[in-house]
Amino acid sequence: MKLFSEILFGGDYNPDQWLDRPDILRRDVELMREANINTVTLGVFSWAALEPSEGTFTFSWLEDVIGNLYDNGIRTILATPSGARPRWLAAKYPEVLRVNADRTRNLFGERHNHCCTSPAYREKVHAIDVRLAEAFADNPAVILWHISNELGGECHCDLCQDAFRKWLKERYETIDEINHAWWTAFWSHQYTSFEQIESPSPSGDMGVHGLNLAWKRFNTDQTADFLKHEIAALREGGAEQPTTTNFMADYTGLDYSVLAREIDYVSWDSYPFWHCADDYQTAVEAEMQHDFMRCLKNKPFLMMESSPSSVNWHEVSRLKRPGIVMNACLQAVAHGADSAQFFQIRQGRGNSEKFHGAVIDHYGGEDTRVFREVSMTGAVLKGLSEVTRAEVKAPAAVVISMESRWAMEDAQGPRNAGLGYMAHVLKVYRALRECGINVDVLDASHSFESYRILAVPMLYMFRKDTATRLQAYTEAGGTLVMTCWSGVVNEDDLCWLGGTPHDLTDVLGLRFEEIDALPDGAHNHFFPADGAPSGLDRAYFCGRLCELVALSTAKPLMVYGDDFYSGYPAVTVNSYGKGNAWYVAADAEQKLFSDLMRHISRRLGIQPILEGAQKDVLLSLRSAKDAEYIFAQNFSSDQRRIVLPESAEVLHGQTNGVMPPYSSVVLRTEKA
Amino acid sequence: MKLFSEILFGGDYNPDQWLDRPDILRRDVELMREANINTVTLGVFSWAALEPSEGTFTFSWLEDVIGNLYDNGIRTILATPSGARPRWLAAKYPEVLRVNADRTRNLFGERHNHCCTSPAYREKVHAIDVRLAEAFADNPAVILWHISNELGGECHCDLCQDAFRKWLKERYETIDEINHAWWTAFWSHQYTSFEQIESPSPSGDMGVHGLNLAWKRFNTDQTADFLKHEIAALREGGAEQPTTTNFMADYTGLDYSVLAREIDYVSWDSYPFWHCADDYQTAVEAEMQHDFMRCLKNKPFLMMESSPSSVNWHEVSRLKRPGIVMNACLQAVAHGADSAQFFQIRQGRGNSEKFHGAVIDHYGGEDTRVFREVSMTGAVLKGLSEVTRAEVKAPAAVVISMESRWAMEDAQGPRNAGLGYMAHVLKVYRALRECGINVDVLDASHSFESYRILAVPMLYMFRKDTATRLQAYTEAGGTLVMTCWSGVVNEDDLCWLGGTPHDLTDVLGLRFEEIDALPDGAHNHFFPADGAPSGLDRAYFCGRLCELVALSTAKPLMVYGDDFYSGYPAVTVNSYGKGNAWYVAADAEQKLFSDLMRHISRRLGIQPILEGAQKDVLLSLRSAKDAEYIFAQNFSSDQRRIVLPESAEVLHGQTNGVMPPYSSVVLRTEKA
Amino acid sequence: MKLFSEILFGGDYNPDQWLDRPDILRRDVELMREANINTVTLGVFSWAALEPSEGTFTFSWLEDVIGNLYDNGIRTILATPSGARPRWLAAKYPEVLRVNADRTRNLFGERHNHCCTSPAYREKVHAIDVRLAEAFADNPAVILWHISNELGGECHCDLCQDAFRKWLKERYETIDEINHAWWTAFWSHQYTSFEQIESPSPSGDMGVHGLNLAWKRFNTDQTADFLKHEIAALREGGAEQPTTTNFMADYTGLDYSVLAREIDYVSWDSYPFWHCADDYQTAVEAEMQHDFMRCLKNKPFLMMESSPSSVNWHEVSRLKRPGIVMNACLQAVAHGADSAQFFQIRQGRGNSEKFHGAVIDHYGGEDTRVFREVSMTGAVLKGLSEVTRAEVKAPAAVVISMESRWAMEDAQGPRNAGLGYMAHVLKVYRALRECGINVDVLDASHSFESYRILAVPMLYMFRKDTATRLQAYTEAGGTLVMTCWSGVVNEDDLCWLGGTPHDLTDVLGLRFEEIDALPDGAHNHFFPADGAPSGLDRAYFCGRLCELVALSTAKPLMVYGDDFYSGYPAVTVNSYGKGNAWYVAADAEQKLFSDLMRHISRRLGIQPILEGAQKDVLLSLRSAKDAEYIFAQNFSSDQRRIVLPESAEVLHGQTNGVMPPYSSVVLRTEKA
Repeated sequence: MKLFSEILFGGDYNPDQWLDRPDILRRDVELMREANINTVTLGVFSWAALEPSEGTFTFSWLEDVIGNLYDNGIRTILATPSGARPRWLAAKYPEVLRVNADRTRNLFGERHNHCCTSPAYREKVHAIDVRLAEAFADNPAVILWHISNELGGECHCDLCQDAFRKWLKERYETIDEINHAWWTAFWSHQYTSFEQIESPSPSGDMGVHGLNLAWKRFNTDQTADFLKHEIAALREGGAEQPTTTNFMADYTGLDYSVLAREIDYVSWDSYPFWHCADDYQTAVEAEMQHDFMRCLKNKPFLMMESSPSSVNWHEVSRLKRPGIVMNACLQAVAHGADSAQFFQIRQGRGNSEKFHGAVIDHYGGEDTRVFREVSMTGAVLKGLSEVTRAEVKAPAAVVISMESRWAMEDAQGPRNAGLGYMAHVLKVYRALRECGINVDVLDASHSFESYRILAVPMLYMFRKDTATRLQAYTEAGGTLVMTCWSGVVNEDDLCWLGGTPHDLTDVLGLRFEEIDALPDGAHNHFFPADGAPSGLDRAYFCGRLCELVALSTAKPLMVYGDDFYSGYPAVTVNSYGKGNAWYVAADAEQKLFSDLMRHISRRLGIQPILEGAQKDVLLSLRSAKDAEYIFAQNFSSDQRRIVLPESAEVLHGQTNGVMPPYSSVVLRTEKA
Repeated sequence: MKLFSEILFGGDYNPDQWLDRPDILRRDVELMREANINTVTLGVFSWAALEPSEGTFTFSWLEDVIGNLYDNGIRTILATPSGARPRWLAAKYPEVLRVNADRTRNLFGERHNHCCTSPAYREKVHAIDVRLAEAFADNPAVILWHISNELGGECHCDLCQDAFRKWLKERYETIDEINHAWWTAFWSHQYTSFEQIESPSPSGDMGVHGLNLAWKRFNTDQTADFLKHEIAALREGGAEQPTTTNFMADYTGLDYSVLAREIDYVSWDSYPFWHCADDYQTAVEAEMQHDFMRCLKNKPFLMMESSPSSVNWHEVSRLKRPGIVMNACLQAVAHGADSAQFFQIRQGRGNSEKFHGAVIDHYGGEDTRVFREVSMTGAVLKGLSEVTRAEVKAPAAVVISMESRWAMEDAQGPRNAGLGYMAHVLKVYRALRECGINVDVLDASHSFESYRILAVPMLYMFRKDTATRLQAYTEAGGTLVMTCWSGVVNEDDLCWLGGTPHDLTDVLGLRFEEIDALPDGAHNHFFPADGAPSGLDRAYFCGRLCELVALSTAKPLMVYGDDFYSGYPAVTVNSYGKGNAWYVAADAEQKLFSDLMRHISRRLGIQPILEGAQKDVLLSLRSAKDAEYIFAQNFSSDQRRIVLPESAEVLHGQTNGVMPPYSSVVLRTEKA
Repeated sequence: MKLFSEILFGGDYNPDQWLDRPDILRRDVELMREANINTVTLGVFSWAALEPSEGTFTFSWLEDVIGNLYDNGIRTILATPSGARPRWLAAKYPEVLRVNADRTRNLFGERHNHCCTSPAYREKVHAIDVRLAEAFADNPAVILWHISNELGGECHCDLCQDAFRKWLKERYETIDEINHAWWTAFWSHQYTSFEQIESPSPSGDMGVHGLNLAWKRFNTDQTADFLKHEIAALREGGAEQPTTTNFMADYTGLDYSVLAREIDYVSWDSYPFWHCADDYQTAVEAEMQHDFMRCLKNKPFLMMESSPSSVNWHEVSRLKRPGIVMNACLQAVAHGADSAQFFQIRQGRGNSEKFHGAVIDHYGGEDTRVFREVSMTGAVLKGLSEVTRAEVKAPAAVVISMESRWAMEDAQGPRNAGLGYMAHVLKVYRALRECGINVDVLDASHSFESYRILAVPMLYMFRKDTATRLQAYTEAGGTLVMTCWSGVVNEDDLCWLGGTPHDLTDVLGLRFEEIDALPDGAHNHFFPADGAPSGLDRAYFCGRLCELVALSTAKPLMVYGDDFYSGYPAVTVNSYGKGNAWYVAADAEQKLFSDLMRHISRRLGIQPILEGAQKDVLLSLRSAKDAEYIFAQNFSSDQRRIVLPESAEVLHGQTNGVMPPYSSVVLRTEKA
């Protein structure tokens, strides 16, 4: 399971922007050493520098930089350069330029803006990847291949249209099958041949939801195929180092659960909006992403990018307050990352990221607040190398699904003003985290067996086996917590007939009747029903979506308080097999979920990672064979307190249980 | 005048989406009978099912469905399928695909997205319409032809450009006439030939207001011509049933007063935004649309579509509270509709309207709240069949004009942030309705003679005869109520010179001087002038637009309270011939118009439909030779009371005068 | 220095819209005389009337109009007609139609919508300009040439692409120089030839900031070249009258400091948003534009357009309150204009400006409020002819820079939600004006020597010599007031390395460390540091941008009050050479700048133009050899007071020191 024997600390480094300044390249190495950096990422956008004209490869500057860094104790993650292509490639092979949904072809420009179907693009990427592999396969400095960069987007060129039709033929076999799946009798849209199929377009159809969904799936598969193509080139060139590609937070263009299969390690780029809202909430959002990334492969991952200072593409580039850099790096590690890397080591002089935070800024000295915070963080991580032996295990999980989200958010109704899916999921996740426990964040295809609590919020799409698997989980003694707008459509976005949540009405003891959407700012209430458990004996707000359900065997615990459905069930529980199935019928406020999850976890006797921590201290645990590592993190601007277990060794932080603003404590306890 | 001998109750039904599910088709008929449905609309988007390839017609499924329904007492409104074309048509004849204002041609997609100038499209529509007519002309089940669906949009292809130039030549004869009418000397835009004329385009001109207006008129005429073309095909095929086409609420793409001439009955699709704001106001908005639709042909009309539950294309799909379905259907009937129909009978499984409300939902049972409300409504309407003998007459009218609105809203100034035309009209309409009387809503070309009160709010455009007709109406004893920004331009959008409202300054006893626009949220006030009538002796807000007028013979009743025009006249009255002309110089609040209309109607001795009804109860009247039908409707969430006349028979509702939330009372009184 | 011997009073007149109405043309002259009009602008959009078909020139109507006006004492400013081309030109030479950034070519339409690179356009403009010059060179009525109209916009056609590449070759010589300047190693964007360069495009690159900046500079230069081309044609035709072209307020498409070099007199079009916010602030904004326009050539300028009433393209067309027309005209004169002109004399009947304010409106009479105010203003200006002998001199200046603004606002970060540059500049300008003194508003290339105070707010771009010039200014005894985010990038938008403000850290005694961006509505505070001067001993708000600076020799006067940088310096002063350099590190509220500038100006012993004027009275001064003209203006809706110097002669306004709402006083004092 282990990635590397120490926590990778460093970030993206672009010496190719400074090849005419050897003084700066020399100074960079000195400063990196001073900052305790042990790893850099190289070559992410270096194609033009590595192959300035077709077939002419100039790798020597890269070999020199890698060698020099290695001599100074710094290893390299080496990127393939396909994230941005050189001009000569676009000029000679215009097919590599992406075509937009309106069928206009782009000029050269920007980055990750190529057609990944294009044979010409694939050939040229293959050529340079093979050469890079040949050059660096045996270089001890190169420890990991970073495939392309922040993959994303889509192309609507003729090559992609053909590939899409081919993909559809493999998936659906006959055009009748597609006509059924996409419900094309609606508005006389029946296809009579695959050749008539066009990708979604503002000039054609944007509202055939089955087509939209298939197109998104195709794009994910095509991108995965491109990843595979690049990795094959590296292997062909003799490289045997592991591979990764860097994902983005909450990116909806691709289904990462599919892409993750192609690579050895997941990595991702973390840019939370610190100090724009409540920092505790921002921290919870960030850690939900960490947990999602970890669960994609159930193994250690990398935080490939983060900013040591402000983020220049945010609407408002807030400075990170003292402590945030360290806390964010420790948070990644606490949730299973074996790295903490920055974009970028040295700030560029020009172009669109010149004001993105960097370890070394335009001033260039080490006497800056940012440089000091980075250096301190490096020193602390160096002292936590042993944590890389430990892994993250969770007693509870939250299920999310990109394909379900695609379908749900593309649908017209019940709330075009926004379903609030991720905000809803985040409430459920935070509620579980507030129980003081590790939480996994799973794609719906993940196995469920190992969890004491399985939360399934707004799982709109039930594939054929979803209900069966949830039923089996509950029957075997699991605790299922499902929320509204679940089990509505099948894999092709056709509504399930005959009662929903599809095939789960027995497990839940209820059936969906209607769903009311509320405008922003409008509310209904939950009130305790007779026999509501203590801890849930108050009123709560709810909004956005309020389902009306008909109960069969379920017991109502809370009911709506307003409108014509006042008195209708809002929270229910149903005993099923050896387990229990809970249902929350509306998008209730955070407090409802927090109180509900606390009630459920206590009922199940699940212990927090640490007893006696003050509210708002985030607790995480990494477990090794012989020891456990507890991370307590304070992401507020106030002081917090924890109670240190007697047996615990303090690896980082204050030893008296006091946690200053934006600080962490890392403990080690021996296993019995 | 009478449409049918009972109130049509049913809606759009799409069996072509379920041809592989005979079990469902069977069940549908059972459920329709249970719901008291007597009429369905078929074939609206069935082209691909009726003509799967060019020249191959497959009508048998439709004949079966129609026959089976008829055997069960359910008649059919049969649609021509031109609202959405099959793929083969677009593939073989690309000219049928619409061209956008930016001159790009669309791909196949969406619906009502064809060029209605295209000879190919007209030919193919003609072919299938003739065949349909031949097949169903003598079918007793088919009672009405529904031409196309929700006509709208525009095409900028070369065929349309040519047709537009031809239309212009007929209208203007010489290019000099156009140069004058469109004031092309401005910015050196003179045409030297008709061939230089291009439809408005973001790539060319969007700001030549005369051109924009002509283009809108051309589109209306071209659409009317298309309607005519379809009806001719039906007649050619031997069909003699009457025709309709379904209009939309407040649709600004077409001038319905022109289109209505081509059809036998007006029908429209009603989707009010219930429970998003004040429901009483929403109900008033809905009934103003009903009154507008009725007056288009001065005869009974159909409510062709409405939702039995939520509307999936609203921003927020609110559930209809208990009672709304019934109340909305009775409202249509109260205002002169002889039908209450839903979109749709059975909810589709996929595509963009899968979450639109339906009589039979995905669950598919009759044990749902919606199904029960629909069934009860059907039963009530069945008991009101006799109402179809009665018609709607009104003592007051509000004049609106689509062409005036086009010109007004296209102009630059005086308030580009929004003139608030329809909101202003609605205030005037509501004020009259609050007098407890029926109100007609008329295009400006309608005759005025029959009305005691004629309200003409913001009639920006005066055609050549407008002033003359208003002058004659007033002189003969009418009560004219005009408001600001009236009589400003002529039919070609050229400003009238020499004082406005054009040719009406004598009738009104005043002349326009200047107009001040106020930002959103800013206000001026009206204060009573010396001698203001009682009932108008308080202060009112006004906003948006405040006119400064110079009085000749008019008497000021209220004056402005703020700004440099404090003391200037704001409400005036002028005696002219046997009548009176009132003027409101600004966009005042609702209360001003309500108080003013109450004052005027009392002065004229106009009686309310029912005495003693509580505020907010909406009263409507349908009159037959021997009887009158009074509809009292409560659209609030509180109880209301009315006083039942001794002589009245209660056809529907409580007999004690109590009106629960969202409920109606229907009374019958014999004529003396 | 003097422009004309009286103040030009009149405006744009479009008789070509009324050639079929000789009665109206006759009446116009009568009304103009009555309104004291002495000058009109003719021919601005008359191309089609002057050359109805290629090579056919019809100038006689224009000669007649000019002659007739001249006979009535009214002179003509004659425009070249290139601001809008006739249809025949676009039809025959499509290359004259602009190509958009997305590479689509426009249809004919709108105005100033031609390619100014196009040889065909240049040839046709040349032809008509030569003819016009020939016709009117010796006409005593024609006193000034008005070149084109409100120049602006850009074209991306192939001709422009080639011209851009040629321009780049001249500026940068080698492609390597461009690669360095635009930092193209970022994202592998290196060019290998000039032919690969494309103008910024949403289909290509919009985020290569060096390219964007070069493109904007090219457009300015190309527009300047077009201006030169037109003027050469006039000279070729024998015309020797001076030239102008009309600029727009705060127009960011062109760098007027470059364009101004080509013309004899600057003129501009002034359309303040009166009565939409605080009128005093609106007046300050307007006068900052006047001061900017005056300083472009350091000589008298013209207010070429303004509205005598409402402005129809404003969101909300507010009526001008009584007094505003006069006050706005006097304001122009007070700040150095020798004209007060309106758009337009007579309101057109149709098209997009039909509701723009005019001296003669659609009603057409002289008995309107607007006509009366215009006439009175004309009479007052007639009495102030002697002012044209006097010029404006200022003891203080504010530096602004269009190229710096382009770069700053195009950058990503630190505040994409808006840097607030112009709002910040305006605070500094207003603070100086509140000291009761004249203020110059200078491009950064202007000489600095003559000013006692030189304010340099947010000067993001330092050209090579900027720091040297500011250092010399300060060393020689000047008072420099610099604010945050200055000296960040060089002329090519590359960040200066090694500490900023570049090369000015010694002068300021500090160095930039970090910059925090704050969301809208969020604030930090300034608090007095120990030893803060009196007058700055309170707390102030600041927002948007808060810099953290490290002091070397500077003395902190105020410090931040909140966040982790509480206590960091916020206002500093540093003694340097014989001068002092002040620094304000954040976008503080108006009051801070007002108090600071008052403190500085008092320290320097700078006297206000008039002692004893009430707050909010705006004071301006024009000086002649023997006399001074003091303008005191009240732009509030309340009364204000001034103290009249004993020696002063009141040329306009009340003689008792009382200033009614929206009124002015003009004084003359003899020089000793």
